[in-house]
Amino acid sequence: MNSIVTCCQVRWRGKEMVDLIADYLENIEQRPVYPDVEPGYLRSLIPEEAPEEPDTYEDVVKDIERVIMPGVTHWHSPYFYAYFPTANSFPAMLADMLSGAIGCIGFSWAASPACTELETVMMDWLGKMLKLPEDFIAGTHGQGGGVIQGTASEATLVALLAARSRAVRMILASDPQRPETGITSKLVAYSSDQAHCSVERAGMIAGVRMKKIPTEQSDKYAVQGETLRRMIQEDKAAGLIPFYFCATLGTTPSCAFDHITELGPICNAEKIWMHIDAAYAGSSFICPEFRPLLNGIEFADSFNFNPHKWLLVNFDCSTMWVRKRSDLIGAFKMDPLYLKHDHQESGRYFYTDNSLFRSLKMWFVFRMYGLKGLQDYIRKHVELAKEFESLVRADQRFEISADVVLGLVCFRLKGSNEVNETLLKRINNGRKIHLVPCQLSGQFVLRFAVCARTTESRHIREAWRLITQLAEEVMQELPH
Amino acid sequence: MNSIVTCCQVRWRGKEMVDLIADYLENIEQRPVYPDVEPGYLRSLIPEEAPEEPDTYEDVVKDIERVIMPGVTHWHSPYFYAYFPTANSFPAMLADMLSGAIGCIGFSWAASPACTELETVMMDWLGKMLKLPEDFIAGTHGQGGGVIQGTASEATLVALLAARSRAVRMILASDPQRPETGITSKLVAYSSDQAHCSVERAGMIAGVRMKKIPTEQSDKYAVQGETLRRMIQEDKAAGLIPFYFCATLGTTPSCAFDHITELGPICNAEKIWMHIDAAYAGSSFICPEFRPLLNGIEFADSFNFNPHKWLLVNFDCSTMWVRKRSDLIGAFKMDPLYLKHDHQESGRYFYTDNSLFRSLKMWFVFRMYGLKGLQDYIRKHVELAKEFESLVRADQRFEISADVVLGLVCFRLKGSNEVNETLLKRINNGRKIHLVPCQLSGQFVLRFAVCARTTESRHIREAWRLITQLAEEVMQELPH
Repeated sequence: MNSIVTCCQVRWRGKEMVDLIADYLENIEQRPVYPDVEPGYLRSLIPEEAPEEPDTYEDVVKDIERVIMPGVTHWHSPYFYAYFPTANSFPAMLADMLSGAIGCIGFSWAASPACTELETVMMDWLGKMLKLPEDFIAGTHGQGGGVIQGTASEATLVALLAARSRAVRMILASDPQRPETGITSKLVAYSSDQAHCSVERAGMIAGVRMKKIPTEQSDKYAVQGETLRRMIQEDKAAGLIPFYFCATLGTTPSCAFDHITELGPICNAEKIWMHIDAAYAGSSFICPEFRPLLNGIEFADSFNFNPHKWLLVNFDCSTMWVRKRSDLIGAFKMDPLYLKHDHQESGRYFYTDNSLFRSLKMWFVFRMYGLKGLQDYIRKHVELAKEFESLVRADQRFEISADVVLGLVCFRLKGSNEVNETLLKRINNGRKIHLVPCQLSGQFVLRFAVCARTTESRHIREAWRLITQLAEEVMQELPH
Repeated sequence: MNSIVTCCQVRWRGKEMVDLIADYLENIEQRPVYPDVEPGYLRSLIPEEAPEEPDTYEDVVKDIERVIMPGVTHWHSPYFYAYFPTANSFPAMLADMLSGAIGCIGFSWAASPACTELETVMMDWLGKMLKLPEDFIAGTHGQGGGVIQGTASEATLVALLAARSRAVRMILASDPQRPETGITSKLVAYSSDQAHCSVERAGMIAGVRMKKIPTEQSDKYAVQGETLRRMIQEDKAAGLIPFYFCATLGTTPSCAFDHITELGPICNAEKIWMHIDAAYAGSSFICPEFRPLLNGIEFADSFNFNPHKWLLVNFDCSTMWVRKRSDLIGAFKMDPLYLKHDHQESGRYFYTDNSLFRSLKMWFVFRMYGLKGLQDYIRKHVELAKEFESLVRADQRFEISADVVLGLVCFRLKGSNEVNETLLKRINNGRKIHLVPCQLSGQFVLRFAVCARTTESRHIREAWRLITQLAEEVMQELPH
């Protein structure tokens, strides 16, 4: 009946797909990195309804090039410099194949013990690679530990909800007469004005006030202790209850680092939950030379970063650690009978989400690269960013807009926002390289993020050649 | 340096992995379906830290059988009858391989147009298969449409948040002087006492009151219009604001169906957002004979079900439709500069989450099975459940505890809860078949869900043989 229902057929077609994937990745730099299509392009290329009878596998495969590829932004092209990297490695892809076949849903220990247990141990492995404080390591008796979330947005939301729940508990404990309703509307959360938009969204979801802490170019866009302290005092004076601060290490616009060694003690003294979001930068902390950027973690209640960004573990894998697992479990506990099992009270595991066997890909990647291989990978990207930075600095027409700490270079033409907007439009319309902008102190800035696993010095130099060529055109056309 | 870094190596190892997966699925029924391990079993089997230098690929592969498989609950064994099914098909696995290689993150149209567009069109295909009202189909000019979420829990949360945002907007529009703070604490959401625990959790996350509507065995565990109407009136009289009702079609305990033709008009009249969660049952609505179960959808604001449960699309793929896309977009809109692009205002797309290219697996599955193949698949599972039901009914010692509508049979020994708990424990300790319980009207009930793609009549008969054999033992040992 169907084109692919037997194991025999999938052996054949699966191997074809392996070749198709290898071909795609091997030749990816020949494709325009950014697609040349208009919204709605795809609808007219395929039927309006699903077929009644099966299509052949050959027809489906043919449509990959005809329908899909013309509309793909090729994130793994060495000419992709937009957003931040998303991971893509062969060990992770192999693990994902296995995970898909096992196809267990890990919502409890009993639903697949290996799934739960490997996750806990892999989070310990990774925590040790980052030299996290002992409190965050589960081990066999720890109170803390790690759990995989889908995205950093999820992790910051989960942390905020756990913080809200802890705050309400603490307030009711100190004043048992106080009515529970109304507490939430007094709660205040804080984050940098440079924080990812999902942090603000987390506040909206949880229904709490979320205040943005202003940052300055002169402070390298980092939140300062003094500013946070002042806002807390003002809010307390106004009858509000500060309860959560989300620090960012490596902001999305410019890869800025909040001063957590200064901010942490303030949060601790005020009993404010400090969460650290290091979505992009976190991977670099496995290198001793970048680990100081994480100093201050000892004051945090929770921490997350995305191995699916820069640690070669394919999406999704956002790793989150908490000092006290009970804070998370307490905030989300539900006990229907259909999820009960004999080891319910082992208390060793905490899962707030359904998921596949995501830890398998961590295991494959960590073992097949080894810690040294992963460190080499991070260092190479940072070197390539430094190489790009030197090219920019050597050209008097351009300026660097923020410190280059890791793999992101923020730069612009000395001149108006208009001239920079035009330059970026030209760059992306050329479709040979792809970048996105950010805004820093009112200036339109170009972000150049080293992204692909296969990016080499020659790609960086070629990108710079293109950028300067287009800049010349733009500067001749526009006043700057 | 690393074991697998080149395309050449992945061609070789990828093909080995295809065989490994095919071998696993071909021989899965020889494995004990439920693992015989104690909590903590895995930690001692692997090192405490990641290796400095890469391990060989051979060592990693060997560890799949040594470390992982002993702790896996085999969800795709034809002897797995626990929870609800989770999908596993070869077309979906092939699509996932491709999706992993493309590895684009679909957080905006520009981030990969094909990803956004195929999703919108696949949601239309699926909506048409289900014969959803025209309002839910995006087409080229529709106001509604579909979006893929990770899980049904996410979908019900997203719907509740959109409903909360709409409710606050409506209240402020009718009374512009009213302070916004404090509105949330007056909002009331409703769902069945049979609804999935994630519905209650969604209420906790959003910080609103969530009331459970009692159901009765005599009403087949369905929410009745009269009950909802009464609760709404009482809450309004108490100064609260009813704003959201989550109906369930196919509850987790017993696959009960709320009376949405009765409940929908009540919600519409009261301006209450009606969301329909048909996580498991939804897949069956592609068959004309089961489509009447969805009658009343015309009153709903939003609807979701999980093709990753019963429609052969591997996890994760929870499909959600809304009547007005603007309700969702409005509730979550964030516009940082790094996400802006030229087609920002095309208004055709709405995404509230990061994701991989999840629509690819819908496309592969729908095309390679065809609508008829998918219908056959659903019908076969329902037939197998009916076969099991007949076996139970033919045995005077047992009783059926709830109507068998689709692929779930709720049954028990006529006797005490203790005797049924003991029976279930024996069944699962035998590890040949796996079931989980539920509670219905205070009774401990066994749930038998037809789950695996490869389950046949012979597996059902073998399962029944085992159950009756163990029941005999238990009845001899225990008073009943």
